[in-house]
Amino acid sequence: MKKKILILGGFGFIGTNLTEELLKRGNYEIIIFEAKNVIIQNPDLLNDVKVYYGDFHNEKEYEIIFKENQIDIVIHLISTTVPSMSNENIIYDIDSNLVNTIKLLNIMKQYQTKNIVFPSSGGTVYGILKKEHKESDPTTPICSYGIMKLTTEKYLYLYNYIYGINFLILRPSNPFGKYHKSPRQGLINVILEKILNKETIEIWGDGSVVRDYIYIKDFVRIIVDLIEKNIQNEIINIGSGRGYSINEILTIIREEIGDFPLKYVEARKVDVPYLILNIDKLRTFLDINLMGIEEGIKKTYNWLKERNINRCF
Amino acid sequence: MKKKILILGGFGFIGTNLTEELLKRGNYEIIIFEAKNVIIQNPDLLNDVKVYYGDFHNEKEYEIIFKENQIDIVIHLISTTVPSMSNENIIYDIDSNLVNTIKLLNIMKQYQTKNIVFPSSGGTVYGILKKEHKESDPTTPICSYGIMKLTTEKYLYLYNYIYGINFLILRPSNPFGKYHKSPRQGLINVILEKILNKETIEIWGDGSVVRDYIYIKDFVRIIVDLIEKNIQNEIINIGSGRGYSINEILTIIREEIGDFPLKYVEARKVDVPYLILNIDKLRTFLDINLMGIEEGIKKTYNWLKERNINRCF
Repeated sequence: MKKKILILGGFGFIGTNLTEELLKRGNYEIIIFEAKNVIIQNPDLLNDVKVYYGDFHNEKEYEIIFKENQIDIVIHLISTTVPSMSNENIIYDIDSNLVNTIKLLNIMKQYQTKNIVFPSSGGTVYGILKKEHKESDPTTPICSYGIMKLTTEKYLYLYNYIYGINFLILRPSNPFGKYHKSPRQGLINVILEKILNKETIEIWGDGSVVRDYIYIKDFVRIIVDLIEKNIQNEIINIGSGRGYSINEILTIIREEIGDFPLKYVEARKVDVPYLILNIDKLRTFLDINLMGIEEGIKKTYNWLKERNINRCF
Repeated sequence: MKKKILILGGFGFIGTNLTEELLKRGNYEIIIFEAKNVIIQNPDLLNDVKVYYGDFHNEKEYEIIFKENQIDIVIHLISTTVPSMSNENIIYDIDSNLVNTIKLLNIMKQYQTKNIVFPSSGGTVYGILKKEHKESDPTTPICSYGIMKLTTEKYLYLYNYIYGINFLILRPSNPFGKYHKSPRQGLINVILEKILNKETIEIWGDGSVVRDYIYIKDFVRIIVDLIEKNIQNEIINIGSGRGYSINEILTIIREEIGDFPLKYVEARKVDVPYLILNIDKLRTFLDINLMGIEEGIKKTYNWLKERNINRCF
């Protein structure tokens, strides 16, 4: 029998790619919970998934899914804030992310759904203490977004300890690629889109900020591989294990795509200067073979170009 | 000029002892914020401190203190939950402890109060992974109370990073002694009170649970010493560095005070089996010379006896 997976936020950036990957594998019945006004980037998915529309802030609107379906796994992709803005309204961050996730866990408990996959944040939970981060490193976030991800990790551990709900916590680096849509985060996608729109690219700081990037198709493949290997109750970094400064990314884009106008502006305090994820733990579970960043950037650019053409006609 | 210290929850167990200690030193002007229905155990304090009564759940009720006084240091002793009950209503724990503390921090930011002392919880933040805990150890609480203490620590770090509010985070073990009043936590006091009331003592589990105890007068002296040494932006375990099983405590009480009726009942899942705090870090700041547990128990018992006599007449 196919496993029933409920994806909260299944039509977002990660959600759309993950849904495609899960459907490709053929072992899953996918149910998606999404906001009523979501933009569905791949409408073909509507043929293969069951969709419930509603508001994550009102648990009654998704409780019905648990009533009507015996859900095996919840993949919780909803986040109401982004790192760069999260310090501006911390109480909203707590209410909308943490409290709502506790409500979700209570509903899972009630309907005896025993598995949850939760992307935390490799980019924000560690803070600025070190350059390369292992899962066991100290965690001192410099944004509320990271604190809320970390706190949710702790509650997942607690719900496992008390109620036996199994978790798989992923700490991704910076995914980029197809179906990315937020203009507020995701350096590579934002830059490529600005190039296509012939806008000037603004870089916060001097471009020395180092990040670890992962192509979205690799990221979702790894998630599904971990689920299929039945990896449970682990916290796992998912990244490339390699760092690129913004200036290095700009050079790669220039080489692959061509030149573009650029402006450096004042650095943001919310950005940690250096972040590379140590992926040794991930390698103990899976063979990791990732797409090169040049190829990922080209693929992303081609997808953006095609999307823009489709939008025009 | 005397420093102005605002103690939130200043008439509680820790608060009353801490207020006495601060007044003894003579360098401080003490302002206490407390609930309207608080039981004041040492009414003499009312001659030496300024008191504002109100509800911590409504920040307007203490904002006036910041308006009317230039507060130098906030000591935040209010906790709306106890470890053993906190898993039963996690959303209340989040709202009443975490959200309210963020409101406090926002008011401190607004009125430019730059120092906060916060007792976290050495007994719950670490979880069950190890026997003796250092401040740098991993933290996986098995109760919501511990998660909220830990999350508040992270936000204190964040408010220091963004707004320069200095924190002193204490992770106490199990303080016991004079002015303790909660029947829901604090093994030694609860047992001694039951002995005085000739009630049967119920022990959860087989009595093997090990804890690290500190006499309250030692605890508050250490807090004030750390404040006077201007130790800032540190997380510090405060305990005895020694462990006693419940059965060992019972033996000590029997030797010091006499025999009593006893019953063992089912263990609670919320209790970690073993907790001793490593206090090497504390020793780098202060010379530590603690009261022996036998003497602390005797003193506590004598205080309880005297209090009961005063209550009867």
